[in-house]
Amino acid sequence: MPDLPQGAEFELIMRHFAPLSSAEAGAFGLRDDAASLALAPGHDLIVTKDMMAAGVHFFADDPAQTLGRKILRANLSDLAAMGAMPRAYAMGLALPAELPADWLAEFAAGLAADQAQFGVTLIGGDTIRAADALTLSLTAFGEVPQGQALRRSGARAGDDIYVSGTIGDAALGLLAAEGGLAMLSQPERSALIARYRLPQPRTELGKRLIGRASAAIDISDGLVADLGHICAASAVGARIEAPLVPLSPAAAAACGADAKLLERALSGGDDYELLITAPPMVAGDLASVAKSADVALSRIGAIHEGSGVRVMTSEGEEMNFASAGYEHL
Amino acid sequence: MPDLPQGAEFELIMRHFAPLSSAEAGAFGLRDDAASLALAPGHDLIVTKDMMAAGVHFFADDPAQTLGRKILRANLSDLAAMGAMPRAYAMGLALPAELPADWLAEFAAGLAADQAQFGVTLIGGDTIRAADALTLSLTAFGEVPQGQALRRSGARAGDDIYVSGTIGDAALGLLAAEGGLAMLSQPERSALIARYRLPQPRTELGKRLIGRASAAIDISDGLVADLGHICAASAVGARIEAPLVPLSPAAAAACGADAKLLERALSGGDDYELLITAPPMVAGDLASVAKSADVALSRIGAIHEGSGVRVMTSEGEEMNFASAGYEHL
Repeated sequence: MPDLPQGAEFELIMRHFAPLSSAEAGAFGLRDDAASLALAPGHDLIVTKDMMAAGVHFFADDPAQTLGRKILRANLSDLAAMGAMPRAYAMGLALPAELPADWLAEFAAGLAADQAQFGVTLIGGDTIRAADALTLSLTAFGEVPQGQALRRSGARAGDDIYVSGTIGDAALGLLAAEGGLAMLSQPERSALIARYRLPQPRTELGKRLIGRASAAIDISDGLVADLGHICAASAVGARIEAPLVPLSPAAAAACGADAKLLERALSGGDDYELLITAPPMVAGDLASVAKSADVALSRIGAIHEGSGVRVMTSEGEEMNFASAGYEHL
Repeated sequence: MPDLPQGAEFELIMRHFAPLSSAEAGAFGLRDDAASLALAPGHDLIVTKDMMAAGVHFFADDPAQTLGRKILRANLSDLAAMGAMPRAYAMGLALPAELPADWLAEFAAGLAADQAQFGVTLIGGDTIRAADALTLSLTAFGEVPQGQALRRSGARAGDDIYVSGTIGDAALGLLAAEGGLAMLSQPERSALIARYRLPQPRTELGKRLIGRASAAIDISDGLVADLGHICAASAVGARIEAPLVPLSPAAAAACGADAKLLERALSGGDDYELLITAPPMVAGDLASVAKSADVALSRIGAIHEGSGVRVMTSEGEEMNFASAGYEHL
C-alpha cells in the first residue's frame, strides 16, 4: 500500500510545518511522539475537531492560502462559541499524489498569517498520502476558566437573541463563487466570496461573553438551524424578526433584488458568526463588550417558552423555509 | 457539493458515537460546539494525532471492529511513549457513500471495547462524506505530571536499550495477511495477522517509565528506524545485538525458516512496542516496573558516543538493511 516515499513526510514537516510550531516549546519542533501543552491553572481544556474534503467541502482548485485558514477558523469559531481563548491546534493532511509545486508553501503561509492574527500555534499533526482527494482534519485547543464554558443549553424564556457581524454572506458567496448573483457588482460579489472563503471567528467577543450570555453557538449550519439547536438543547422556543437580522451591503443588495435570497441568507451555513441568548438586564453590558471586541452585536428576537424557531417578516407574517438549513459537516 | 444528507450526521452521531462519550461529562453528549476536559492539577496535556486512509494504511475490507481500534491504539501508543496517562480522544471520520449496513455499529463496538480496556472516552469529532475512500483521523489526549513527559532526546552514552513485548510481528503479519509465510502453521499466521491488525499500546508500562527512562519512542517506523530517531534527537549512536531482540514464537519460526525475514522483523513498522533507553543503575528498577505492568522488557543493546544504529549478528558481524525501515505515516 503506497504511502509517501520514505523521508518525504519528515522533510515536508520540517520545511513547511515545524516553523509554525516555534512559539510553543511543548510542540518539541514536531519531532517527538506527541506534544505537551501546559494550561493556565484553574482552566479547562476546550477541544473541537473538523474535517473537510476536496469536492465535498471545498473546490479542489480553491486557493491553498485560504484552505488551511478556513478549517482553522471554523474550529476557532467553535472555541469562540464556548467562550474559550484559543491556544493551539493539530493538523492532519491527506495529500493527493499530485499537487502544484508551491501548494504546501502557500498552505503554510496562510496558516502562518492566521497564527499571528489569532495567537495560536501548530503543536502536532499527521501527514499521509490520500487515497484520492485532499482531506484536511484539524483539532483546535483552547482554555476557559474551570466550569465556565458557554453552552447551547442555557437559554431561558425572556432572553434576547443576538448575532454578531452580518448573516448570509457565506451562503450568498458560495452562489457567487458558482457564477450566480449576476445582479450584483463585481466588488459586491467579491466581498461575498471572500466571506465564504475566509470566515471571521469571533474570538475576542466569545471570551467576553462568559458570565454574560446564557447560551451560545456559532452559525455553521445556518441561522435558523443553529437557533434550533439552542432551542432544542435549552427546551425553549424562539422568534426572530427578519428585518432585525443584520445584512452586509452586498447581501442586502442581493436580497433587495431577489426576495427569495433572504431565505437563503437566513438558512445558509458557514457564517461562523456567534448566535447568543442573554437576559435583557445585560443588554447594556453586552453592547459595551461588543464595542470593546470591535464587532457588531445585533438583537434579532427573543426566547419564549415552548419549542421551535419562527422567523417573522416586517408584516408580522411567519416565513416558511423550504429547508431549515443545510447540514454543514 | 454533496455532503451527508441533512440530519444524517446528527442521527449517526447520536446512535453510534454519543454512547461512547457518556463517561466524560465535558463531552456534553457530543451535542455542543466543543468538549471540555479538566486535567488533573499540576499536569500537562499530551496531544497526538494520526490519520489513516483505506487503500493506503489499511485494506478497505479490513474488519470494521478493528479499524477504529487500530488508529486509537496507534495514538495511545504515542501517549505511552511520552509516559502519559490516556484520558480521551476525538475522532474524525470521512465516510464513503456506500458502507455495509452494520459497518458503523461494528466500528463503534470496537471502540467501546477499547475504551473499557484503556480507560479513554470519546469527547468529540466530526463525521463527513468522503470524496472517495474511507479516511480516519484521531486525536488522543493524555496527561503527565508537569514537565515530566518522556522525550526522544535524553539518551546518553552508556545507557542500555530496551524494547517491550516482541518485535516484527506486525510486519510479518502484513506479509501473512497478503498470503505470504506459507511455511508457518495457520495458528502462527493468525497470531501474526492479529498483531498487525490490533497493536497493544504499552500504556501501563509507559506511565511507569517517568523518572526511569532517559528516552522513549514507540516503534511505528520499525525498530532500526525508530532507534535512529532516538539517536538523532539525542546526538548519540546505538549498537544492538540481533539475538537479544525478542521474537514471538511465530516470528521466530518464520525467521528460522527464512533468515531474510529477520531483516524484515527488525526494520518493519507497526509494532507499537516501546523502545527506551535508561542508565544501567535503574536496570533492577525497570525489571520490577515491567513486571508490575505485566509486559516483557528486554535489553537489546547499548548507547554509545557518536551517531547511527548498528545491528550485530551472533557472529559479531554488522547486519545490512536494504532500507532502514519504511516511512509509516
